[in-house]
Amino acid sequence: MAHLRQVLLCCLLSGAAWATAGPTAIAVHGGAGTLTRDSITPEQEHAYLKILNAAVQQGHERLQNGATGSEVVREVIRLMEDSPLFNAGHGAVLTWNSEHELDASIMLGQSLAAGAVAGVTRVKNPIDAAYAVLASSPHVLLSGAGADQFAEQQGLRMVENRYFSTPRRVEALEIFRSHNRENKPQNVDEKFGTVGVVVLDSAGNLAAGTSTGGMTGKRWGRIGDSPLIGAGTYANNRSCAVSATGHGEFFIRWQVASDICARVRYQGLDLLTAANQVIHDELGSAGGDGGVIAIDPKGNVAMVFNTEGMYRASINSDGKKVVSIFRDKNNSNNDGQDLSDG
Amino acid sequence: MAHLRQVLLCCLLSGAAWATAGPTAIAVHGGAGTLTRDSITPEQEHAYLKILNAAVQQGHERLQNGATGSEVVREVIRLMEDSPLFNAGHGAVLTWNSEHELDASIMLGQSLAAGAVAGVTRVKNPIDAAYAVLASSPHVLLSGAGADQFAEQQGLRMVENRYFSTPRRVEALEIFRSHNRENKPQNVDEKFGTVGVVVLDSAGNLAAGTSTGGMTGKRWGRIGDSPLIGAGTYANNRSCAVSATGHGEFFIRWQVASDICARVRYQGLDLLTAANQVIHDELGSAGGDGGVIAIDPKGNVAMVFNTEGMYRASINSDGKKVVSIFRDKNNSNNDGQDLSDG
Repeated sequence: MAHLRQVLLCCLLSGAAWATAGPTAIAVHGGAGTLTRDSITPEQEHAYLKILNAAVQQGHERLQNGATGSEVVREVIRLMEDSPLFNAGHGAVLTWNSEHELDASIMLGQSLAAGAVAGVTRVKNPIDAAYAVLASSPHVLLSGAGADQFAEQQGLRMVENRYFSTPRRVEALEIFRSHNRENKPQNVDEKFGTVGVVVLDSAGNLAAGTSTGGMTGKRWGRIGDSPLIGAGTYANNRSCAVSATGHGEFFIRWQVASDICARVRYQGLDLLTAANQVIHDELGSAGGDGGVIAIDPKGNVAMVFNTEGMYRASINSDGKKVVSIFRDKNNSNNDGQDLSDG
Repeated sequence: MAHLRQVLLCCLLSGAAWATAGPTAIAVHGGAGTLTRDSITPEQEHAYLKILNAAVQQGHERLQNGATGSEVVREVIRLMEDSPLFNAGHGAVLTWNSEHELDASIMLGQSLAAGAVAGVTRVKNPIDAAYAVLASSPHVLLSGAGADQFAEQQGLRMVENRYFSTPRRVEALEIFRSHNRENKPQNVDEKFGTVGVVVLDSAGNLAAGTSTGGMTGKRWGRIGDSPLIGAGTYANNRSCAVSATGHGEFFIRWQVASDICARVRYQGLDLLTAANQVIHDELGSAGGDGGVIAIDPKGNVAMVFNTEGMYRASINSDGKKVVSIFRDKNNSNNDGQDLSDG
């Protein structure tokens, strides 16, 4: 009997271990835009590939070690917010009034729990403020000075607004203003640079998060798609998890993130087909530029964009890694080449 | 030949008239909650039925005379914003700081054009500010002081914040604060009272709009579902138009407005079945209280809620009018009795 109990206990334990060690997968993006090989230097390309690779690698290792989707989404987004390379956290673009107003959101696919902040100016890591809304308030979306106040009450690290500034973004605002005075078209890439993460954790739960500084020269308290559940961020274990980047107003009107998941859930489409339909057929034909990363409960990953490029990286449930920036001419699925060891 | 030309011209003219005189339909709501016959006086009931009837009647006549969905949504919502009976415009609830912060949105089903404002404090009719964002800005959602500034620049009528106050809402905030001090549960109905309109116009276009003061005692710049496209408001000629009212955080997480339309579009469900699934099966089982009004391109109307009642009225494409408050025990579809002549 003692032996039988041991065997049973062993089976139960290994069952438990097995149950918490399902397949894992992760995808990250750092914005989409008119990115071509001519538009950035080899040094810039290397710097982006390096941090994209580090982000996806670190997130994947944490998932393999049993970290939850919620933890990994926040850790990886913090890493990208802290980098000056992306339009999120440190390195965010400047508003019309030469300030930074940051947006972020997170959603968990098991519970549909969600939290978001719009227009925060003093939280070092807006993704942590979004999670605090999810975990410690009855609300989903807080905005402006009230959201900063809430984050401070929650004990999050606060900074001066100028912490987010970088010379590159100051220059971009000057160019924006000069184009505005002369009625010249703006560099559309200044709309982009949002960061996002989607994961499947080892417990089988999906999660998604997005963080951004919004558009250079934005005003009137403009809120884009990044903090809006269903537009820039969505996660539902029944279908998929999505984080978007691009011309936010189109992503709101087309409900990009939740529409991809609705097509998966209600039409039974595979993830890539659903993402291609929404990004190319719907948004593309309407003139809405941008892209998404998406993941499904089996660990399939889709990284789809209708721009020249999208900073992106992924490791799917088969362990296949992609780290890429430009569009691969031979790959209509936009999921690029494996440049991780390049 | 002259006669033939006359006949042809006549046919063309009547054809044109016919083309712009398709079926029309409209539904309005003034909020959902624990409304029972015992909870309001006969005088209150009469006052609500009277304005609901006036709203739906006026909107329907305008639609019959060829007004666009966009015009009728704004006209009818203005009427309800100007009434002290609803939690929108004059009569809105008070925030934690004894102020009014108003949200509104509008969406047009033909173009998916959308506009919204969150947390405005000085625009007399927030629905007009939402429409100005749609019509006169490159954005979809503006917030806070910036949104007020934009509205003022657009020439909209501005008021002092106290214009929105009524004795009833001042008292509600006092009760809220006293319950808060004593850790007593809040009266959930103070979450509700949002107004909304959905229409099918004679050109075959759907439109939806929603306006609210949000939740009594809200703070930290909380934004609910009403100004969020896909959550509180959605319109798409391919599927349906929806305006929601209820516990906003649930409506955001469940993407109530766009999910109903996704089920219509992708699963081929009829409007009422789709609305019932989302409001009863999804939201109801999760504890999310509230309801929706919805309309499809054929002029079918669904008014569905999982609360005790919802202030509502509709005239569908067959001309059938419903004006109602309470749940009709004999009617699982929640579309009430015809009380319009009561």
